[in-house]
Amino acid sequence: MTPTTSPALATALAYHHAWTSHDLDTAMSYIADDITCDAPGARISGAQQYRGFLGRFMTQLTGIQTAAAFGDDTTAVLFYYPHTAATSDAPTAECFTVADGKITRSVLVFDRPSFAPPPDSRP
Amino acid sequence: MTPTTSPALATALAYHHAWTSHDLDTAMSYIADDITCDAPGARISGAQQYRGFLGRFMTQLTGIQTAAAFGDDTTAVLFYYPHTAATSDAPTAECFTVADGKITRSVLVFDRPSFAPPPDSRP
Repeated sequence: MTPTTSPALATALAYHHAWTSHDLDTAMSYIADDITCDAPGARISGAQQYRGFLGRFMTQLTGIQTAAAFGDDTTAVLFYYPHTAATSDAPTAECFTVADGKITRSVLVFDRPSFAPPPDSRP
Repeated sequence: MTPTTSPALATALAYHHAWTSHDLDTAMSYIADDITCDAPGARISGAQQYRGFLGRFMTQLTGIQTAAAFGDDTTAVLFYYPHTAATSDAPTAECFTVADGKITRSVLVFDRPSFAPPPDSRP
């Protein structure tokens, strides 16, 4: 997506490839111990809490389409479509702050209603 | 945000600056007539429909904090925090496809519940 892969983007893509391949241990090797992550309706603090959060989402993932990936020395941004039982066309964006090859901060954006199971027909 | 501003990013930033300055006419000058935009819960087709959509959101905007901006020849990504009456810390991401200085496609991501007015205390 970019002519050269920046240091932050290389880390973000390695992390992204690992978790979307359901390799939680490798994914966590790119996460700083003191990570903070802002997700819709939640703030996650620390690698242990993050591992639980990522592990839960990973179990729902059936596929992935990555749409855009950019970065510089310290920041990387990914745009992708996670495939789940509920949807495969709802986008997700992630903005990573990277230091020394580890993700220290992540801002995760998705629309929670777009990932909810379809409503049933009961009134 | 990037060492050099790519063609797509230059267009996206000019558009972004215009609409966040409440200059709808200038913002629309960067929008292709046949734009398609995927927003949470909505697909917008064509410049006329897009103008209505953007105009409605613009009236709610009280400020903006832009967090990241990247691009290449054809694609640009922005991460920002729109300030509204309801929130100033809910992120929004936008992925633009640009051709000949016009935005032909936009994928807009935000979490609708994060921008909803706070629930009142009635049961």
